[in-house]
Amino acid sequence: MGDLLVVGSVALDSVQTPFGKVEDVLGGSATFFSYAASFFTRVRLVATIGDDFPAAHVVLLRERGVDVTGLTQAHGRTFRWSGRYGYDLNEAQTLDTQLNVFAEFRPSLGDGLRRVPYVFLANIDPELQLDVVTQMAERPRLVALDTMNFWIQGKRPALRRVLREVDVITINDAEARQLAEEPNLVKAARVIASMGPRIVVIKRGEYGAVLVADGAFFIVPAFPLESVYDPTGAGDTFAGGFMGYLAGQEELDRAAMRRAMVYGSVMASFTVEDFSLNRLTRLTPPEIQERYAAFHELVRLEG
Amino acid sequence: MGDLLVVGSVALDSVQTPFGKVEDVLGGSATFFSYAASFFTRVRLVATIGDDFPAAHVVLLRERGVDVTGLTQAHGRTFRWSGRYGYDLNEAQTLDTQLNVFAEFRPSLGDGLRRVPYVFLANIDPELQLDVVTQMAERPRLVALDTMNFWIQGKRPALRRVLREVDVITINDAEARQLAEEPNLVKAARVIASMGPRIVVIKRGEYGAVLVADGAFFIVPAFPLESVYDPTGAGDTFAGGFMGYLAGQEELDRAAMRRAMVYGSVMASFTVEDFSLNRLTRLTPPEIQERYAAFHELVRLEG
Repeated sequence: MGDLLVVGSVALDSVQTPFGKVEDVLGGSATFFSYAASFFTRVRLVATIGDDFPAAHVVLLRERGVDVTGLTQAHGRTFRWSGRYGYDLNEAQTLDTQLNVFAEFRPSLGDGLRRVPYVFLANIDPELQLDVVTQMAERPRLVALDTMNFWIQGKRPALRRVLREVDVITINDAEARQLAEEPNLVKAARVIASMGPRIVVIKRGEYGAVLVADGAFFIVPAFPLESVYDPTGAGDTFAGGFMGYLAGQEELDRAAMRRAMVYGSVMASFTVEDFSLNRLTRLTPPEIQERYAAFHELVRLEG
Repeated sequence: MGDLLVVGSVALDSVQTPFGKVEDVLGGSATFFSYAASFFTRVRLVATIGDDFPAAHVVLLRERGVDVTGLTQAHGRTFRWSGRYGYDLNEAQTLDTQLNVFAEFRPSLGDGLRRVPYVFLANIDPELQLDVVTQMAERPRLVALDTMNFWIQGKRPALRRVLREVDVITINDAEARQLAEEPNLVKAARVIASMGPRIVVIKRGEYGAVLVADGAFFIVPAFPLESVYDPTGAGDTFAGGFMGYLAGQEELDRAAMRRAMVYGSVMASFTVEDFSLNRLTRLTPPEIQERYAAFHELVRLEG
């Protein structure tokens, strides 16, 4: 089992969905990722928070065994995101983004973090993602990266540069098409793989996720849920389950990748069942195994 | 192996997609269904055509072993549909519909058809669908029905009436939500099942299809294709593969239903690779088996 470094955002989110509304709740890509991955491996979080950040949130992460020594507190307010979803929960409408202390975030890895074997570069400026990769003392066993339309449009050269250094990209389907400049998803995945990442994971919201590794496809559906309250963090939770599971594996072969896709989907299916990390904080390992088995039933062709 | 009756439309379609344009080509729900199902069982087609319908199209169906004695030729023009797709191939924009001889279509089953064990009521007026069911001399082994937003909105009572008589409904996801008046798909499937059909098949276009049988879910993705030229007929082709496969099975159990879902998806994956029935007319049984095996690889969790 190898340590898993994540560099990304820790935020306070305000979210409206047709099912409710929350304000200044715990959010951020690195938060969802860390919490989800903590069920599988030791997570080491590098992020920044403001002096308004509730101490209870840090306790929550620490109690899951997340190493928060890389979580620096800066003077000012914590990064805030505010968004709204309609009945089509696939698409968030961003109402407001306040970078606050995140605007000055320059991730710096201490000695202990420069040799971590598994690395996840959450959705932040690709220049910072590249900076993190450059700080590693040796090539990690597996580096994954997440990105979004904002960086694809505004920082394409920097994104292309960091893509050459990663093994895995996680990206949603519209963004995959945008990055590849190709409407067909099969061709888009191939174009993205040619940019560097050997493994392309395409997230499709309520339709699940697609793994493209060495030209071969694996598709996992999203778990059919009766109550989807808030999709915020689903993609980062998916990545946390995916990378967390892989960090515990001897072999990063095809079978491990496929199981990791299902564990990612399992974790994401819990996140969307409540606002913020509420469902995850009530989650138990037997529930994870139970839903993994249910996924198996969901796609099993024989019997 | 049991005979499979289909009642629906035979049409001449004009279609534009970003990849090309065709005019007055062979189309219609019963056509795509018949051709696809003919690879698995004996199909008996009940539909109507005008006196402008090219004889070569009838020959095409007959050469596949489709019984066309129920295909009546009326005075007037054949049913015509014209539509357009953008890069999002999931949604057709209907440009024009001319019912022509289809407006007077009153399906009448001869003696030989009243005891057919498998029945597919393609997407036509639910009053006609009910009329067909009523004409059956004995309860068929399996009756499936397809419908659309037009009938859900305009003929809900008649649709509700015929739904009580069928075992299977095939419907797309937006229409499932509309029929059930419920945005959550899991709940919507349960509501629809309570209207009559024991088996609910939800078609999701490029995202595949969902089977809900006795409360249990099975999800099959769409096959990842590099070239999708025209999705017209994909849903009816899916139904043809699904029902055709089942008509050849001893047991209509859970395993057979799941395999049928994959055969439906296999057949639909060929249809979209070209306009009209062009790809299907070039299709060979070994290609069907090859793609079935590829589907297996696509979703297989182990190994």
